Amino acid sequence: MSEICEQIAKIIGADRVLTGADAAPYATDWTGQYTGAPLAVLRPANTAEVSEIMKIAHATGTPVVPVSGHTGLTGATLATDALVLSVDRLNSIDAIDVAGRTATVGAGVILSNLHDAADAHDLIFPLTFGARGSAMIGGVLSTNAGGSNVVRYGNTRDLCLGIEVVMADGRIMNLMSALHKDNSGLNLRHLMIGAEGTLGIITAAVMKLKPKPRAYATAMIALPSLDDALSLLHVMQDSTGGAVEAFEYMPRSYIDRHLAIMPGAKPPFEDSYDVNILIEIGATAAHDATPGANGQVPVVAQLEETLGAMLEQGRVLDAVIAQNQAQRAQMWQRREDAGEVMTRGTPFVNTDVAVPLDKVAAFERMITPRLKAIDPDCNEVIVSHLGDGNIHHTTYVSNSAPAAMKAMVAAVEDVVQELGGSFSAEHGVGISKLDTMRRRKDPVALDAMRAIKAALDPKNILNPGKVIPPADPAAQNF
Amino acid sequence: MSEICEQIAKIIGADRVLTGADAAPYATDWTGQYTGAPLAVLRPANTAEVSEIMKIAHATGTPVVPVSGHTGLTGATLATDALVLSVDRLNSIDAIDVAGRTATVGAGVILSNLHDAADAHDLIFPLTFGARGSAMIGGVLSTNAGGSNVVRYGNTRDLCLGIEVVMADGRIMNLMSALHKDNSGLNLRHLMIGAEGTLGIITAAVMKLKPKPRAYATAMIALPSLDDALSLLHVMQDSTGGAVEAFEYMPRSYIDRHLAIMPGAKPPFEDSYDVNILIEIGATAAHDATPGANGQVPVVAQLEETLGAMLEQGRVLDAVIAQNQAQRAQMWQRREDAGEVMTRGTPFVNTDVAVPLDKVAAFERMITPRLKAIDPDCNEVIVSHLGDGNIHHTTYVSNSAPAAMKAMVAAVEDVVQELGGSFSAEHGVGISKLDTMRRRKDPVALDAMRAIKAALDPKNILNPGKVIPPADPAAQNF
Repeated sequence: MSEICEQIAKIIGADRVLTGADAAPYATDWTGQYTGAPLAVLRPANTAEVSEIMKIAHATGTPVVPVSGHTGLTGATLATDALVLSVDRLNSIDAIDVAGRTATVGAGVILSNLHDAADAHDLIFPLTFGARGSAMIGGVLSTNAGGSNVVRYGNTRDLCLGIEVVMADGRIMNLMSALHKDNSGLNLRHLMIGAEGTLGIITAAVMKLKPKPRAYATAMIALPSLDDALSLLHVMQDSTGGAVEAFEYMPRSYIDRHLAIMPGAKPPFEDSYDVNILIEIGATAAHDATPGANGQVPVVAQLEETLGAMLEQGRVLDAVIAQNQAQRAQMWQRREDAGEVMTRGTPFVNTDVAVPLDKVAAFERMITPRLKAIDPDCNEVIVSHLGDGNIHHTTYVSNSAPAAMKAMVAAVEDVVQELGGSFSAEHGVGISKLDTMRRRKDPVALDAMRAIKAALDPKNILNPGKVIPPADPAAQNF
Repeated sequence: MSEICEQIAKIIGADRVLTGADAAPYATDWTGQYTGAPLAVLRPANTAEVSEIMKIAHATGTPVVPVSGHTGLTGATLATDALVLSVDRLNSIDAIDVAGRTATVGAGVILSNLHDAADAHDLIFPLTFGARGSAMIGGVLSTNAGGSNVVRYGNTRDLCLGIEVVMADGRIMNLMSALHKDNSGLNLRHLMIGAEGTLGIITAAVMKLKPKPRAYATAMIALPSLDDALSLLHVMQDSTGGAVEAFEYMPRSYIDRHLAIMPGAKPPFEDSYDVNILIEIGATAAHDATPGANGQVPVVAQLEETLGAMLEQGRVLDAVIAQNQAQRAQMWQRREDAGEVMTRGTPFVNTDVAVPLDKVAAFERMITPRLKAIDPDCNEVIVSHLGDGNIHHTTYVSNSAPAAMKAMVAAVEDVVQELGGSFSAEHGVGISKLDTMRRRKDPVALDAMRAIKAALDPKNILNPGKVIPPADPAAQNF
């Protein structure tokens, strides 16, 4: 064990300093695309221990890569010649304030554990996505994770009131406010959220909780076009007063691949269609959720009525409304298999982009010929949080030469840029989008990021080389 | 005219460089508490001119104080030996995207003009407060302004998707995204919002628009206690699915002073009460807003029903529901006279604090004896965005000695701190809360703010000395 690790072992215990085979699971990421060689994996028990580790790292100039649930998709936790600092033991839910609707949690709390804790008080923590059983609050905050119901509740940063952060030099910054209004100087909370561990290590947070919907209306709907899908979204937002929780687009490519690779997968309809939407509406008001004299739940009746009218007009082709929790779960399972559908089977090029809502159809039209021009045998799969204009696009390629792969990514990003979109919607930058950041992000913004990074982490020890491409391309490590 | 001003006059025109009597209106703030002596007032026409001015300021090390509507309450735009840069001519509304529900606006657009522009498309820009006829988007963003319907729509930062910023060296940073998901590096938008012009000059923005409520239920309600008021808030949030737009607390002290100083003011009820609430609910869903067979609007009927039940239980003492737009406007006028009620009549000590929702009553109980101990003849006035726990507290003092005034502020802030609140809720820091920032803000956070300020404005020319107290108290100018 190195001298630094021995020093750290005295603080956190030798059994919490993993090396060799014990550290191996942290070397390779979930997608299997990135493999590093960490010096060691550290598992401190609390904020004070994180602070002591950072003091040692700072004194010795040792790079530290923070990690929590290890479910990221961009290589942000790749560590070579660096200490991996796992916050997984900071996993206590310290308080659920029911009246104030907040939860005070450690960075190692697993997302689904927070879901359960809120549920016990008839509240929800709304942020959710497929990896919720592994992803932890620290990573969720550090990537400003999105997911399936951003359309109603916002991204992670919209659900966070306060954070505690260990800085590069080991000092602890306490911003653990539970207030809804707090304008006391520069907003460091929002700067730390989404910084992917490059500016500090988030160790705890105060998260917002929301009233639990009393009833859901969930349906799979096939439509003639994406324009009809957007009409449906607007009509339902309108008739429910903005209660649409999810509006997920699964095109034919996604449904077909899902059926092909997932054992036991079932098609959503008897026939197959190009445009398939999963919609979910959450009714929090009693008068929308309480069954009427006819036994019907009003929010479900509203959805049925709208779909019936659109069916008659030929603007809906088919629809299935979930009649019970099991049917609802099955509809969601299809969407939550996306991790498998989009990244199992290699080689592939995977992008996470956003365009204005009404430009998703244009994206589909424009991208295919450009990809086929590079690799005529490639196959595209798309799944989209259509309510946010967020598209996850995977191309399974036949030509995996690095130049061809890069050209595929550039083709997707070119179309996105032409449509006024962003090359990075909700997964973050990590190392996978460093080149793109350099090429496409506003150069003044890049310089500002570099200046802030140097100001808060002058020794460049916090997740070095990630997120912000260096001014000199030759200095880029990844 | 100084050499620098002559140089700038060549770029923006001599008639846009104000000095002497022309500059005088910019020397003193709206409250009359702060008077400076600007070198000149500059009125550039567009972002390019702002950029050129900053290049000259940067080259010569000349301080620049940005100003827009000049309605701030904290002395943030006080300028002595500095150029005042007014963005009031950057006042065009460049686009209203109805489908995407965004507005692209210059920093000089007056808030109420944006309200009108949105209204023409049956949309709203929800942020609103008394000074909306003068306040401009640049200042609204720079202070992360709050106002009366934060409880439903959030603060300014929650309503902003993109910004354009001129940096200290004159370079233009383009973050004019209209996307709902964009995780491309450090979030510089949120850092600039609320920075009060210390990190850059916001010149344009993309703001969110929201569907216009189809009907409002607005009422003045007298209750036995603040606990009953909070019960009412929760019940109404519950029964409307979160459609409470405003929940404003006006205690007896406010009502009495309003009647005393505002010509033509009328009392809300025949009797007078301690706890008076203005509630407004906005119904966006058709089924909540469309009058039923009996001619009643459902959202109004819901409010009436709730109030009726609480009246019977003795938990509501009196209530008046607005029957038309004129009555609604009158109810709002009483609240919007707050600027006058809270800051006309000197000397006074004014604070803008936030506590957890259920601690407002405790604040009231705790603060009075402490203030009376300092100044037995003082008079308190309170008005509160109760739905956010945001309290505006003014003490009209008999002893205006600086030490006594400071002791009054400290007394309020002590109580706030004891209750887990913030000394700065929505007005910002400016110079009025520099001492408080030094005493009460987390010291690690203060150091981080100083490092960021030095990184982005190394010559310290952007609104120098505001917001962030220097590490050395002797270096503090204000």
